[in-house]
Amino acid sequence: MRIDNLQYANWSLKIFEQLREGGIDAVHVTISYHENFRETVLNFEKWNRWFELYPHLIMPGYEARDIDVARDLNKTAIFFGFQNPSPIEDDVGLIEIVHRLGARFMQLSYNNQSLLASGCYENEDAGITRMGKQVIKEMNRVGLVIDMSHSGDRSTIDAAEFSERPIAITHANPYAWHPALRNKRDKVIEAVTSNGGMIGFSIYPHHLKDKSECTLESFCQMIADSANKYGIDNVGIGSDLCQDQPDSVVEWMRIGRWSKEIDYGEGTASQPGFPEQPSWFKDSRDMSNIEDGLSSLGMHHDEVSKIMGQNWYNFYAANFSPNKVR
Amino acid sequence: MRIDNLQYANWSLKIFEQLREGGIDAVHVTISYHENFRETVLNFEKWNRWFELYPHLIMPGYEARDIDVARDLNKTAIFFGFQNPSPIEDDVGLIEIVHRLGARFMQLSYNNQSLLASGCYENEDAGITRMGKQVIKEMNRVGLVIDMSHSGDRSTIDAAEFSERPIAITHANPYAWHPALRNKRDKVIEAVTSNGGMIGFSIYPHHLKDKSECTLESFCQMIADSANKYGIDNVGIGSDLCQDQPDSVVEWMRIGRWSKEIDYGEGTASQPGFPEQPSWFKDSRDMSNIEDGLSSLGMHHDEVSKIMGQNWYNFYAANFSPNKVR
Repeated sequence: MRIDNLQYANWSLKIFEQLREGGIDAVHVTISYHENFRETVLNFEKWNRWFELYPHLIMPGYEARDIDVARDLNKTAIFFGFQNPSPIEDDVGLIEIVHRLGARFMQLSYNNQSLLASGCYENEDAGITRMGKQVIKEMNRVGLVIDMSHSGDRSTIDAAEFSERPIAITHANPYAWHPALRNKRDKVIEAVTSNGGMIGFSIYPHHLKDKSECTLESFCQMIADSANKYGIDNVGIGSDLCQDQPDSVVEWMRIGRWSKEIDYGEGTASQPGFPEQPSWFKDSRDMSNIEDGLSSLGMHHDEVSKIMGQNWYNFYAANFSPNKVR
Repeated sequence: MRIDNLQYANWSLKIFEQLREGGIDAVHVTISYHENFRETVLNFEKWNRWFELYPHLIMPGYEARDIDVARDLNKTAIFFGFQNPSPIEDDVGLIEIVHRLGARFMQLSYNNQSLLASGCYENEDAGITRMGKQVIKEMNRVGLVIDMSHSGDRSTIDAAEFSERPIAITHANPYAWHPALRNKRDKVIEAVTSNGGMIGFSIYPHHLKDKSECTLESFCQMIADSANKYGIDNVGIGSDLCQDQPDSVVEWMRIGRWSKEIDYGEGTASQPGFPEQPSWFKDSRDMSNIEDGLSSLGMHHDEVSKIMGQNWYNFYAANFSPNKVR
């Protein structure tokens, strides 16, 4: 079982075929960054068209069991997520609507302060807002997973504690391994994983030790160390692969419509675009490299399987359906 | 089994309880008239809230089998429909989106010309438009049923012939029984039913012989005659009950935002509001009166059961899921 819990590709037939060649059974696809609800619906429409055009390669995923169906049919199940809460605007009722449409992860903030939480680029992080608490309760109720990948430390720890269901950091690495602003300090990862949550390790070069030059061995050792520290059941892959995207897209990710001034995020004025992927992970076909890299460290087959997909499968199975509290 | 295939009540706990008291296993609820997509989503949100508040009385219905679940749990399954294609705006991609959200019927026009078809109040009916044909194909593909209750004769006959799946007139009566503009001539009903479609008989007083004074016997005899003429498997109930609605709502139904001048539709300047319901059908609890009335005519139990709900159940089972043509 192989699950990549974060991709934001410039999707095409070629990439869908590569998902199959890479044996990816499920992928969590970012469908919106700063899009409002109406714009997000247009993105769902675009995906519906791809599902209609390429039914032999991809199918929509709503529950973990759809991954079993996908495996039987030799397809990849696509699960959707938002990197910012823009799609729900100021309306808690939209949470159930986007869940029905297929959203399964939503970040409470993306770098900046949102209506719900603070972002990792803000100087001050006042934690989860009044609306944020209502949104977390509603996300818990319907089965929309809280993702804090781009949120501030305090907001993330607050969310992990306030949420009655496990939350996730879908794509980031430990700050101790590579001190990037987007990577997470121990206490933050522990707050998430100790409550049953997951962290997906990112292969976005800015999150990697030595960036594009990061070795497969270093990345896999970091995973093994994290598994020891945070629990073998709480770690997975969230590659953050932005395959074939033009550099205009990373600008959209960074400034959306919130600023007229450019913000380089993790880049710089001299290197504003997408950085080059490391040689061992150019696209989905390279997932086997990670699997081999983990095995080379002497990890057991069962442990490697958990990291490569079984953990995310179990997390999906527990967290994508409405809460049965009633 | 009892299914009312058209209601547009001013929904409340009282009315949900009456659905249960009346033994209504499923109801097709109008969720939008002239609302655009975004406004329709707000209406779905309102229903989600009712499902959350009254889970012991109602549940969303997506497929016929949900009616079995509802019966087991002593609830009413709610299926949604639009009386005008306003919710899909000019975007064929919205058809799959609204189907996913729960829409199962959509009228191609409401009294007026739409982007898709002509309405029964227009002087000229040029039939199904270019976009209308694309929309019918897409509705067929995803399992959204074409409803022609308020459309023109030619548009209705065209739609019945062009559609690859059966269509419906969810709420109207034979013109031969009561010559109202909204009632349907033989050739129109035949075009629909001879292709496997359904007609649901309306208890909206303007559609009844002698209007509010219509007798139960006359209504039931009309049903029995129609069953003989159009087929016992092709007839059902679509009461058009607009319970507890203020008169401002019938004005919204009639003119929405398309006119600054009042249009009285089936009413008149002296009687612009909702007409009084006949004594034998004030609310859902009176469905048993119709059942008794049909039995009094000497109809077999099996025939009465078909009319009261089994026919709609079978129609739902055949027409609410994506077409398996692929």
